[in-house]
Amino acid sequence: MRRWLDAKSPNFAAEFDALLTMKRETDDDVSTSVRAIIADVRGRGDEALVELSNKFDRASLSVETLRLTPGEIAAAASACKPETLKALDVAAKRIEDYHRRQLPADASYTDATGARLGWRFTPLDSVGLYVPGGTASYPSSVLMNAIPAAVAGVKRLVMVTPASGGAINPLSIEAARRAGVTEIYRIGGAQAVAALAYGTKTIAPVDKIVGPGNAYVAAAKREVFGHVGIDSVAGPSEILVIADADNDPEWIAADLLSQAEHDRVAQAILITDNADFAHHVDAAVTRKLALLPRKDIATASWNDYGAIVVVDALADAAPLANRIAAEHLELAVADPDAYLPFIRHAGAIFLGRHTPEAMGDYIAGPNHVLPTARTARFSSGLSVLDFVKRSTLLSLSPASIAALGPDAIALAEAEGLDAHARSVAARLNQKT
Amino acid sequence: MRRWLDAKSPNFAAEFDALLTMKRETDDDVSTSVRAIIADVRGRGDEALVELSNKFDRASLSVETLRLTPGEIAAAASACKPETLKALDVAAKRIEDYHRRQLPADASYTDATGARLGWRFTPLDSVGLYVPGGTASYPSSVLMNAIPAAVAGVKRLVMVTPASGGAINPLSIEAARRAGVTEIYRIGGAQAVAALAYGTKTIAPVDKIVGPGNAYVAAAKREVFGHVGIDSVAGPSEILVIADADNDPEWIAADLLSQAEHDRVAQAILITDNADFAHHVDAAVTRKLALLPRKDIATASWNDYGAIVVVDALADAAPLANRIAAEHLELAVADPDAYLPFIRHAGAIFLGRHTPEAMGDYIAGPNHVLPTARTARFSSGLSVLDFVKRSTLLSLSPASIAALGPDAIALAEAEGLDAHARSVAARLNQKT
Repeated sequence: MRRWLDAKSPNFAAEFDALLTMKRETDDDVSTSVRAIIADVRGRGDEALVELSNKFDRASLSVETLRLTPGEIAAAASACKPETLKALDVAAKRIEDYHRRQLPADASYTDATGARLGWRFTPLDSVGLYVPGGTASYPSSVLMNAIPAAVAGVKRLVMVTPASGGAINPLSIEAARRAGVTEIYRIGGAQAVAALAYGTKTIAPVDKIVGPGNAYVAAAKREVFGHVGIDSVAGPSEILVIADADNDPEWIAADLLSQAEHDRVAQAILITDNADFAHHVDAAVTRKLALLPRKDIATASWNDYGAIVVVDALADAAPLANRIAAEHLELAVADPDAYLPFIRHAGAIFLGRHTPEAMGDYIAGPNHVLPTARTARFSSGLSVLDFVKRSTLLSLSPASIAALGPDAIALAEAEGLDAHARSVAARLNQKT
Repeated sequence: MRRWLDAKSPNFAAEFDALLTMKRETDDDVSTSVRAIIADVRGRGDEALVELSNKFDRASLSVETLRLTPGEIAAAASACKPETLKALDVAAKRIEDYHRRQLPADASYTDATGARLGWRFTPLDSVGLYVPGGTASYPSSVLMNAIPAAVAGVKRLVMVTPASGGAINPLSIEAARRAGVTEIYRIGGAQAVAALAYGTKTIAPVDKIVGPGNAYVAAAKREVFGHVGIDSVAGPSEILVIADADNDPEWIAADLLSQAEHDRVAQAILITDNADFAHHVDAAVTRKLALLPRKDIATASWNDYGAIVVVDALADAAPLANRIAAEHLELAVADPDAYLPFIRHAGAIFLGRHTPEAMGDYIAGPNHVLPTARTARFSSGLSVLDFVKRSTLLSLSPASIAALGPDAIALAEAEGLDAHARSVAARLNQKT
């Protein structure tokens, strides 16, 4: 049964704390088997990769069929509906337009001493994109992960996805082609992560691995982190809707369910200032649940993790929203722009009554890979910045090192690092 | 004995590979004891924190003396030399000036359908800064970690540092005060990381923990990651110098040693196109080593990990530098700006003969917290961006959801996520 919290209740503070600290993830400790898989792929390369893939994915691969041929990639589109391909193209264009605006600027300036300072961004050389198999193969996630990398200037974009029972979702293949992916391999699980990180004869290693996956994939990414970069490991999805009583309860109920259907441990929360409205939404959720194809999943999510919070005034919702720091936050209020300044922590913010979160999942342009489980307090969704890195630049003239060198020497000596001091003193014609 | 690699040698490729894959870090597995310490602090709070600190830091703290008083902080400056304080002030001002230029811009635009899109940056609420005790208490690192956070707008900046035998480096305290740190606690090790992540009665929890530390601190940061943010775990320092024969060999030798003195597992590498020059630098290193206060450390680093690489032409150095992806890269060549476009991967780049790396460590302005161990291929040094996060913004008009909604529905249905489709369809006056 979904929770009902009333800010007037004497237990409200404790109940809200309990809502915040609910544990929604299972800690499957798969690290021992994952370490063995990684060691096997590092040791035996393609041979291990083929063996493990055939075992775990019920596939019948050989080294020769690990990689999709250009013909197989080109043929994928013909297996998709025309209206879906058209929608995919609209989505890809809008995502590219949004992310192109994120390209960071280099900087250079000269200070009063004549020192030139700045920084320069360069793209990563290569990126691996993990795409889950089966029903979790989401073409929209292929776009959301690959397009920012392509926009950043990454030249080599490698997709891996398990061919569960031999098949790969053709729309995911077409999304990859459309987004600029240059290589696709029929592999998944920890063995795919190991191949991307360390390389095999067939697959050259990449510099960073992104994309969602199951517990084995997440554990493998943690294991190879440091040797290559990884994105943050996302938890189950969540939505927080702040809504006044002037909303259509049907719309708000539909929005709550759009996250609940993702996963049994997804979380949907409504905060409103009107108990009657809250009851209407609650009833609409119950009615709609029964009609959903994924009603088992959505019902489990709503019953176990869903919550309705009734506050005295909408002004009281913002501090609660900041504590929740939701992945997705809808501001379904009369003047969302006036409300926005009170929100400090949220992955993605959807403003107004006509902006359901699902529009952001598919078509609007912003990225749908977002921080979950309150990590929006300190982290951001995926962006072009995840696929570039910054080198700082410094160029000193003889005059600038003459001006600044003595202070550097003073600090180096205070820290007992004399070789540091001497490398500066050498340029000042001091004793070295 | 430092390695000598000659690009003309038939073994060069293998020798260079071996140089790249040298393991410089010990994998002390301290995770079991670290987990026990964290559990203890979470369970017993201040009581555990005081007990563990007194045990590990040979301190005699009580709950009342965990935190430095305003008087103790204000008094630190009087224990420092005036010329050091002056240098600290110059450094702080320059670091602040450089990092202020990194403040990212918010964005907002309206597309042809009337949809408003953009993003907004907000600072983290609170950050914890770990500062090692004893001889590894570097005031310059306090500035480099705290100033970007303060510039980002972080309101609560908490420093922790073990009071080894009771004492804290007064210059580190003064650097913290100067940089905007608001609280300082006499704690260190895994217990300090646990207190910052989970809070105790005395110490409110923070949202992110940054700063260097020993194996226990690094393991504790890995353990609490996800609950709070952490910076990347830095490995031993390293420098790569690309130098032509027109440099003073004494200057280049001094630069190599400025990194070698950091740590027995630090690494200094010279690449040059002139074997005679290389021999002169080599001889200068040997001479200077004998005169260094930290000669034991620097000699171990140079003998075990140092390398001189002689190439045919300086153009051959850039591809090698990109494979090394060094933390610090000096371009001590005639026209460093012309050389720069060939460099793709490096944490910090120092241009020209008058720009020793140590100037960047202390006074120039760019951050000295940089990616090590080839991670510059996919990551960047510390910056203001590490202390802000981005919320994406989306606001649809009725006209824009009417225009874009059908494509969102097509994609949601292709992914089998009907509740997503229905939340969009509800706004299109379609059956929900």
